[in-house]
Amino acid sequence: MITSLVTGGAGFIGAHVARELLKLGHQVVVLDDLSGGFEENVPTEATFVQGSILDHELLARLFEQHKFDYVYHLAAYAAEGLSHFIRRFNYQNNLVGSVNLINESIKHKIKCFVFTSSIATYGALEPPMREDMTPQPEDPYGVAKYAVELDLKCAHEMFGLDYVIFRPHNVYGEYQNLGDRYRNVVGIFMNQLMQGKPLTIFGDGEQKRAFSYVGDIAPHIANCVNIKESYGEVINIGADQEYSVNELATTVMESMGLEGMIRHVEARNEVQIAWSDHSKAHRLFGTDRATTLREGLDQMVDWAKRTGIKKSSKFENIEVTEKLPPVWLED
Amino acid sequence: MITSLVTGGAGFIGAHVARELLKLGHQVVVLDDLSGGFEENVPTEATFVQGSILDHELLARLFEQHKFDYVYHLAAYAAEGLSHFIRRFNYQNNLVGSVNLINESIKHKIKCFVFTSSIATYGALEPPMREDMTPQPEDPYGVAKYAVELDLKCAHEMFGLDYVIFRPHNVYGEYQNLGDRYRNVVGIFMNQLMQGKPLTIFGDGEQKRAFSYVGDIAPHIANCVNIKESYGEVINIGADQEYSVNELATTVMESMGLEGMIRHVEARNEVQIAWSDHSKAHRLFGTDRATTLREGLDQMVDWAKRTGIKKSSKFENIEVTEKLPPVWLED
Ligand SMILES: NC(=O)c1ccc[n+]([C@@H]2O[C@H](COP(=O)([O-])OP(=O)(O)OC[C@H]3O[C@@H](n4cnc5c(N)ncnc54)[C@H](O)[C@@H]3O)[C@@H](O)[C@H]2O)c1
Ligand SMILES: NC(=O)c1ccc[n+]([C@@H]2O[C@H](COP(=O)([O-])OP(=O)(O)OC[C@H]3O[C@@H](n4cnc5c(N)ncnc54)[C@H](O)[C@@H]3O)[C@@H](O)[C@H]2O)c1
Repeated sequence: MITSLVTGGAGFIGAHVARELLKLGHQVVVLDDLSGGFEENVPTEATFVQGSILDHELLARLFEQHKFDYVYHLAAYAAEGLSHFIRRFNYQNNLVGSVNLINESIKHKIKCFVFTSSIATYGALEPPMREDMTPQPEDPYGVAKYAVELDLKCAHEMFGLDYVIFRPHNVYGEYQNLGDRYRNVVGIFMNQLMQGKPLTIFGDGEQKRAFSYVGDIAPHIANCVNIKESYGEVINIGADQEYSVNELATTVMESMGLEGMIRHVEARNEVQIAWSDHSKAHRLFGTDRATTLREGLDQMVDWAKRTGIKKSSKFENIEVTEKLPPVWLED
Repeated sequence: MITSLVTGGAGFIGAHVARELLKLGHQVVVLDDLSGGFEENVPTEATFVQGSILDHELLARLFEQHKFDYVYHLAAYAAEGLSHFIRRFNYQNNLVGSVNLINESIKHKIKCFVFTSSIATYGALEPPMREDMTPQPEDPYGVAKYAVELDLKCAHEMFGLDYVIFRPHNVYGEYQNLGDRYRNVVGIFMNQLMQGKPLTIFGDGEQKRAFSYVGDIAPHIANCVNIKESYGEVINIGADQEYSVNELATTVMESMGLEGMIRHVEARNEVQIAWSDHSKAHRLFGTDRATTLREGLDQMVDWAKRTGIKKSSKFENIEVTEKLPPVWLED
């Protein structure tokens, strides 16, 4: 029996990866502190443990007890734009937490460590981003992700720990937290529409992203451990087709069958165009076929309507308030 | 009156930087938790605060109280080779601790943040290391240093925080901790000789380093805030002349006037040759004149003989023991 740990498995992508692993016949243990996830996202066939990757004693017990073959590490606080204002929390949760898992993975000689890094590692490089470009992260979230990548390389050199690193971008779909005001523009738009509120757009809305349907990604994250050529690799994963945030707003309204006002708020410090070259993923996993934005949104809308409005909660412990976008302070 | 904070000012390089700042007429506050430093290293004219950079509430109080103009951040646990085995501690102390200082420096709008990174950021790149090469750190210590560098760049972009980053290497001289078994081969040799013990050398001793006398470095670290061209720069600093560890052992014995046996222990995972190109430092600071190895060692030996033998203490909380060099476990 193959046993896998999925950290962040009560979150959005993790909930999908956990399901894909069950399909592959793995036993699945989900570890999540529910800071951004929901217990109802965890598939019933998985063992759910509520706890934090910062609790290294808990990790030691879990690794001892379950003798994991694989670790899928998705737990993170992924609010990229907010990370400037919560530097300490960002590095604690996203780097030190990851390192706790790397320590246990070394000690227990697991077979492969699968890590979801991010396109944020590239920063403002000229797109399309390719994996052989030198990362130049522009925010603490991207720095933390890149540091974990570098640390995994060290752990491989020194201890032989195998790993696969994914750099997804702008993923959307079912189980996404609709109540997170700091990230996931797709979920934010749906949540605002359901409440009859205007859709907030930073700046002119012409910033472009290649929104990626989770169903095109999660199966490959789950199955990569069976594809030896992916070991030791850093792999971009996601859609090729880019859309402006304005185009996204229109398509979300169409898919929901709801009209909303647009409210442009002050542009924030963010990358204007970010899209990736996926030829490596296509070659390794055959990921050529992509769900269209409209198809993916329709799937997500079905789920969002069943789930309903989520209260958009505020992050409690902002460390630096200077330059914080005012919209993030509204109730 | 100009006021500067020197973290790690009870440590080796920090003790020198604090003295240089006093010479420049700064008021100096030293913050050090004495984990690797000694209160007697702090110059009497400086205000000494015993505490940790991990204590962010203490930092907030100190910044509020002293309204620092400049922050010289030298506090770190710099045991590069050990960092594979104390990953969590390494990132806590060297990255999260640094980020606590960056947060306060942003909030209090200090004028410049001076950071001692390390040649370890380069990893096993082909020497001579130049500042325009892409870092490829090979151990968690180097990853943490590089992450702080990247974080400072983000803080500059977002909040306008000015910084100067130094990448010193293999510094030796007075105030160096002679009792650290994990680093500072010069201090280890002196301590072993004074105890009549054999000098331990990892592998064949032909690994080469450009040992750098602290007196050639500390004045430039202190004065860089007055050289505007150095703002935003990453700067290698140290000696150009390289020596093998075997040559070093011979020269230390000559300088001390003591003979010692050589004990070769199993080679560890370390970079074979590491030396840097210093043309940028020469250009910015006029650092061309260097103390010779023999001159520098003579200065240090004078001091070491006065200071006497130090008990070589063991690091208490090793996280991973696999592949730990056995000599580090000896009493
Ligand atoms: N969604 C995207 O577009 C995207 C893009 C690039 C990378 N990623 C990465 O993919 C991963 C999953 O992202 P997501 O969109 O599903 O986010 P998510 O917030 O829905 O899921 C993250 C989960 O991690 C949990 N978590 C956070 N901190 C934890 C801790 N200390 N201990 C235990 N659990 C903790 C949260 O409760 C949440 O359930 C993250 O690592 C993220 O950085 C996501
Ligand atoms: N010595 C070298 O060859 C060398 C080379 C490259 C970089 N550096 C860097 O230069 C700086 C100074 O190094 P050093 O050789 O003087 O080392 P050191 O150990 O003598 O000095 C570091 C000081 O920091 C203090 N410290 C450690 N953790 C602390 C914490 N959490 N809070 C407060 N104080 C803390 C220690 O007590 C010590 O006094 C370090 O950042 C190191 O990484 C040194």
